[in-house]
Amino acid sequence: MGGVRYLEDVEVGSKASFGRYEVTREEVIEFASKYDPQPFHLSDEAAAKTHFGRIAASGWHTCAMTMRMMVDNMGELGRSGMGSPGWDELRWLRPVYPGDVLRVETEVTEVRPSRSKPEIGSVHSTIRVFNQDDQPVMSVKSIGLMRRRPD
Amino acid sequence: MGGVRYLEDVEVGSKASFGRYEVTREEVIEFASKYDPQPFHLSDEAAAKTHFGRIAASGWHTCAMTMRMMVDNMGELGRSGMGSPGWDELRWLRPVYPGDVLRVETEVTEVRPSRSKPEIGSVHSTIRVFNQDDQPVMSVKSIGLMRRRPD
Repeated sequence: MGGVRYLEDVEVGSKASFGRYEVTREEVIEFASKYDPQPFHLSDEAAAKTHFGRIAASGWHTCAMTMRMMVDNMGELGRSGMGSPGWDELRWLRPVYPGDVLRVETEVTEVRPSRSKPEIGSVHSTIRVFNQDDQPVMSVKSIGLMRRRPD
Repeated sequence: MGGVRYLEDVEVGSKASFGRYEVTREEVIEFASKYDPQPFHLSDEAAAKTHFGRIAASGWHTCAMTMRMMVDNMGELGRSGMGSPGWDELRWLRPVYPGDVLRVETEVTEVRPSRSKPEIGSVHSTIRVFNQDDQPVMSVKSIGLMRRRPD
């Protein structure tokens, strides 16, 4: 994404692969304790009674870790990023376990100038998150707002 | 949701209103520092240059706070809850600011036994999150898996 600063710099079909997030047991439990204290996110014993089998990260933790990798990858883009109105079709495809190492692949599917606000537009992307075995653990379609290039 | 333990106990159209989450500046900055370190989530000065106006919570933090209110509300339901395959149409409708107090409203829109796994099914719900001024700040359509009542 080097040199990408404005909506006009984003090309449909452009792909990126980035990130390396080591999932630790300590962080899985810390996040779940605060935000998603379901038993299978907190103890191996409880998780063994579910399809998780052993302690697994909250799906919201996976979203949060993914966001961190995306922000770290933004670089110049961050200057023109204006947040997001939302994400679609969020799917947790496989459990994320302590010890996993996550990475991200993105592909831009649509670039759309705003109809109502001439100075901004939206970038639609498909985001996929993989573990160290290249198994997809999460997919989602993101919408990001960006500034348009000043005249 | 008293007495709701199995898929068969969930009625389409049933509504719930619950939760009280006080958003603190300290927690907004802590979450954003770890998972979404975009400037408008970290400092009032940077946020003043955006539509946020002042420091605002990461959308993922709002998801996480919402999840906490939902888990706290699960009660008996938690025993049969089996996690979620995903959420759809996640929308951040208004900024969430330090000092806000969030609450949740849910409505069950569909209850569907699994075709492939006779012992489980899915509950589809619309979730809306409001601030203390009863303004919607987030909406999303959730899918939750539940056990069916044993024969």
